[in-house]
Order: sequence, then C-alpha cells, then structure tokens
Amino acid sequence: MHTPATLVRGGTSKCWLFNQVHVPADRAELEKMLVAAYGAGDPVELDGVGGATPTTSKAAIVSASPEPGVDVDYLFAQVGIGTGAVEWTSNCGNCATGVALYAVAKGMVPITGDRTRVVMRNTNTGAVLEGLVDTTGGVVHHFGRQTVPGTRAGGVAVGLTFREPAGGTTGLLLPTGRAAEELRVGTAGPVRVSMVDAGAPVVLVDAGSAGRTGAETLERMQAEVPWLRTVRHAAAPLMGLFEPGLHPGAEPGDAVPKVGLVGPPVPYTTTLGERVASEDYDISVRMLTMNAPHPAVGLTSAVAVAAAGLLEDSVVSRAAGGPTDEWLRLGTPAGVVAVRCTDVADGLPRRVTVQRAARLLADARIYVPETGSPQAA
Amino acid sequence: MHTPATLVRGGTSKCWLFNQVHVPADRAELEKMLVAAYGAGDPVELDGVGGATPTTSKAAIVSASPEPGVDVDYLFAQVGIGTGAVEWTSNCGNCATGVALYAVAKGMVPITGDRTRVVMRNTNTGAVLEGLVDTTGGVVHHFGRQTVPGTRAGGVAVGLTFREPAGGTTGLLLPTGRAAEELRVGTAGPVRVSMVDAGAPVVLVDAGSAGRTGAETLERMQAEVPWLRTVRHAAAPLMGLFEPGLHPGAEPGDAVPKVGLVGPPVPYTTTLGERVASEDYDISVRMLTMNAPHPAVGLTSAVAVAAAGLLEDSVVSRAAGGPTDEWLRLGTPAGVVAVRCTDVADGLPRRVTVQRAARLLADARIYVPETGSPQAA
Repeated sequence: MHTPATLVRGGTSKCWLFNQVHVPADRAELEKMLVAAYGAGDPVELDGVGGATPTTSKAAIVSASPEPGVDVDYLFAQVGIGTGAVEWTSNCGNCATGVALYAVAKGMVPITGDRTRVVMRNTNTGAVLEGLVDTTGGVVHHFGRQTVPGTRAGGVAVGLTFREPAGGTTGLLLPTGRAAEELRVGTAGPVRVSMVDAGAPVVLVDAGSAGRTGAETLERMQAEVPWLRTVRHAAAPLMGLFEPGLHPGAEPGDAVPKVGLVGPPVPYTTTLGERVASEDYDISVRMLTMNAPHPAVGLTSAVAVAAAGLLEDSVVSRAAGGPTDEWLRLGTPAGVVAVRCTDVADGLPRRVTVQRAARLLADARIYVPETGSPQAA
Repeated sequence: MHTPATLVRGGTSKCWLFNQVHVPADRAELEKMLVAAYGAGDPVELDGVGGATPTTSKAAIVSASPEPGVDVDYLFAQVGIGTGAVEWTSNCGNCATGVALYAVAKGMVPITGDRTRVVMRNTNTGAVLEGLVDTTGGVVHHFGRQTVPGTRAGGVAVGLTFREPAGGTTGLLLPTGRAAEELRVGTAGPVRVSMVDAGAPVVLVDAGSAGRTGAETLERMQAEVPWLRTVRHAAAPLMGLFEPGLHPGAEPGDAVPKVGLVGPPVPYTTTLGERVASEDYDISVRMLTMNAPHPAVGLTSAVAVAAAGLLEDSVVSRAAGGPTDEWLRLGTPAGVVAVRCTDVADGLPRRVTVQRAARLLADARIYVPETGSPQAA
C-alpha cells in the first residue's frame, strides 16, 4: 500500500500532510496507519518517514470543509515516538501555516491575486484560523525569503490569523479591568504588570519595574524561572484562573497564565548568533513555556502581547513607545517575530496575525506496511 | 526545482537514493544540491529531508554502470549535519542493500526468478559488492519479514556479498600463518586468538581462554575496552599492521585490527529485550568498534568471523562446534546475524555473504531550494 503525502516545514516544525481521501476515515485505523508510516513503534522511527523528534513527528489530515465559510478542515496528529500511539488533543500553529500553503499548492482553494486567504478549522480543538498565503503574481510559490525565529531557512510568507482571540478563557481582554497595575510579588516591592487574555491568559511584567531588561539571555532567563513562577502564582487569582479558597493548600498550575518580561528594544545577539539592532524591532519579549525559558515566543503569547500593544499605558505600549495597531516586531531570544492586530473595535482586536513562513519540502508516496505485519511492530 | 528520490531503509540506516540522471554530474554542484535538499546547513536539518542523525543523513547516487560485469554504480554521500558539507570517502554496507533493492524496484536490472543478483560498484572506494534480492515469484517486493539486528522492523531479504575478501589488507587470510595461537597480553597469562584478514584485519579472542564468555552485556563490554585494546596492540605487530621500531614511542592505532570475543552460544537477552536461546545461533560475538562496544557486529567483522569459521581449530570453529561452510549465525548484543562463505578453495572464501534486509519507505519529489538562496544558508 502506498499513500500520497506532502512533507511541509511550517515555521520550525516538519509535518507530513495527507489528504483525507487517501487515508482511513476511522480514527483507530488512521492511527495505525500513521504509526506504521512513521515507523513510530520504535524510538528512532527507523522504519518509516518520522523524524524521531517532537517537532518532526507530526502529521495533519486535510480535507475540504463542509462548514460554511471554512475552506479546509485539518486534524492534527502528534505521532508518538516509540509509543506506537498518536496524541489527538492539541493543535499546532506551525503546522497550520503548512496546511495553508498546502491548500493553495494543491488547488483546494482558488488563488486570489497576490495574497490568498485560507480559512482553516482545526478539528481537534474547533479553533478557526486564517492563513494569508503569499501568492504574488497570482501563482503558487514553492520558495521564499520570509523567515521565522529559530531558523535561518526562508519560506513562503504565511500570515497566520487568530480570530476573536480576546477573552477566550476569562471572557474579558482585561480580566482585572485595567491595562496595567502594580502587582505585589512575594516580599519584594511591587512590579508593574499587564494581565491580558488574548490567545491565552498572559501576565506581562514591565522588566524595568523589576530590575530586569526584557532582553535577558536564555541562561539568565533560566535563573529567573522561580521568580517568574511567583509572578504567575500572584497573578492567577486576580485573573480568575485560580480561586485560593476553593482547594485549600492547592497552588496555581504552571500552564496559565503564561508569564514573561517585556522591555524596550536594545541591541542583542540571537541564539543563532545574529546581531539584532534596537531599530530592528519594537519590544523585547522573554517568555516562559511552562517552567522553562521559551526559545522564541509561543504564537498565543505573541497574540497577547499585540493585544496589549493596542492599549494606552499597558506595559507593552509603554515599552514600545506608544500604542500601535501596526505590525509590532517582538525581539525574542531566537529572533524577531512580527504580529499585528486588525479589525479593532473599542480596543478589542477581532483578528491578530502572526507573520510566519512555510515551505513544501517534498511530495511523496509513502509505502505503508500493512498494520499487524512485522514492519508495524 | 524538484528532484525525484527514493527513501530506503537498508538494515539500520535510512538513505535517500537519487538516480544520476536527476542530479548534477559535477561533484561540487551535487554537494550543494544535497546540502540544500537535506537542509544540512543547520544541525536539526529543519529545512529539508535529512534526518539529523548520522544514520539518517545519508544519500547515494545510483547509475547504470559502464563497467562490464557491474550492474549499477553508486556514490555514497554522508551528508554532514550542520556542517553544510558532504563526506565522500567512505562506503556504507547498509545503504548498499538499499541500492540493490532500489535497482530491482526501479527496473535497472532484470528480475531473474525468485532471487535477483545486483552487482554494485561503490565508486567512493572501488569496492564491488553483490546484492541478492528476494524476488520470490519473479516480482518486486516492497515489504518482507527479514530482520537485521538492531531493529524489529522487517524488510525484503537482501544477501550482501563481499567478493574476494581474504587478505585485502595484509595479502594473507592468516597473516601469522596459523588458524589460532596463544597470544601473551600484558602481564597476564596467554589467551587463545585467531588473527584473520578477511573483510578487515580482525583479532578474535577465544573468550573461555580469557575467563570471559563472549556473551557479555554491552555494559560489561564497556569495562572490557581497556583490556581488549591491549589485545589489539599485542596483535597488531604480529599481523604486520604495526612495526614497533619504525616510529619509536608510537602506539598501534585503534581502527585495525578490529578486536572482539567469541564463545559458544548461550541463552541471552538482546538490547531490544528479546530472549535468544542457545539453539537460535551458532557463536557468540562481542566486538569493539574503535574503542567502544559495537551494538551488533560490523559487516566486515562478520566476514572475518565467517572466514575463520571455515578453518579447523580456529577460535571460531571451536566455539561453533566445528568448521562449517553453511550459514553461520552470530549472536550479537542486538540480535542474530547470519553470514556464509561460498566459492571456497583451499580454505579461502572467494565470497562471503551477510543476510540483510531493506525496504523502500517512500518515493518522492524533493523541492530543492536554489543553492545560494536564503533557504540554503
């Protein structure tokens, strides 16, 4: 049996994309097929096309969507490495940019001039995203010069837009009703923070108010983890994410709110060794992902920073030199990522777009061992 | 630009195979193309089809051979990971088995009944090998149940034959003129060894004569490394591989002779956790590769063990219960590998065959960035 598939790079992930018409409709059969195709029964994915790392053992099943206003549905699959199982509960923004380019390249949506919009529904989570694919000249591009932090490789520019990102968790863009405020953290003096719910609930610390810069190295950020956890834990109940009295003795979790530092732009060197001048970006951002420094910035955190950047007096607009609804360039450890709010009404962004890049790496027919045969063991 | 290529697994390696007609003839251009296709400019090979490990960042260029008696030439490429360069000086036996299957599957050689012989010349080294590919029923198979040590994955059986392997380095199958002898190692008592030059120069220690079993775990073998180095260094001058007076103070190197223990079969558990009974194999083999325990057995070492197995009184024929020119099953840490001498004249094997397996994983068109463009950086 051989199955058509396309290997894409979306941002810093590699992902095989399958058209639904070529794979089993039954979820259990599909999972068996992916495990066999990836060789995912063993930890080096030797007998298949898997890349044996979390960012290179991903797949998505793409189909024309029956939903009005949606072009394509995609089901994201994190193919377990050596587990012989697939994790079906999450979404992947990097893969979404690959899906947008694939939908254009495979003729699943009509090309509309220099930019082609692909409306995508992630069927794992129900989230609807838009990919705005560079189709300059009205044609599909296979190569491009757009980059994303974390790799020097260029690709086709894909703007990835989150729709109606504000208040998704708490119901409010500003759960405390204020664009910025003083937060008392432990026994030290107060620090200035903005608590924002857009893309995800995020607490952003004005680095200067805390004796930091927002342009710390990853090594330095590693040392800040315990302190930033105390900031997260102090913010969680104020954002309605944790009710201290509800479970006596319990602590807030480490997934939300996301937490990080922001500061004015300063010259720095990326983890790839490239120099970034202060005029190359608008605001320094250093986030945690769970309890580790994020090597760049999570897409949902970038959305929150952009949303805060709309607001007078937020820690973001102060660091960036004033509120803006233009492209905001975030200086992250891995490099600069641009994000922009549009369709703004009463300070609420109805769309937030992150500038990403994707590239088709290969079109293939994968020889998939029959499940149950020795190859699939 | 997109380039046709086929991903094969040969034994425990993954390798992309290209037909010469689809790639640049100029070596420098070819190297640029491979680096771009693999994304090999960065250490995770993000922007391409490379697998970012030494065993999954390999390629070979296959062509119909102009050499009489040779079916296909192949040029092996070890694509450097993050170096942006290709290493062109070595051969890869695992990839050779993939080349044999590819040559059959792509119609480069006629199928001849249940087994199809492919004569291959490795143009890096000039070595000529034969692949005997399972074509049961007179057809190409894409899947099979043959396994090799180091993976549970099954593939199509490919017998890989080394031609005229005896005396390649020293001119003699037995450089000392004896099938076995006592070797004094350091200050301890003598141990019984066979010093054989077939495939490569190898010194094989009768494990029992040294208070070992030949069925040691990899952990235990790690502890034996210093002692086995002294065996290697004692054997080197006797095999003509090192002249002590030539460079005063110099020590023998660690590449040759290859060194290891052999012993009678005993029940053991492979590194994959599988039980092997003593009747499942003929001889225990534990080799070093340079100064580390080999996880299985190098193909050239397997050739030497088989050649020694032909000879009355060698440490191999004694451990295996007598000389044999049938398949000899070597029990290695990773599992059992079978090897056989044929065309034997006066104790000299003119051909030695190792039983291997290969599988086509995918046929693809790889989108290769123009070299010099940002993608290739």
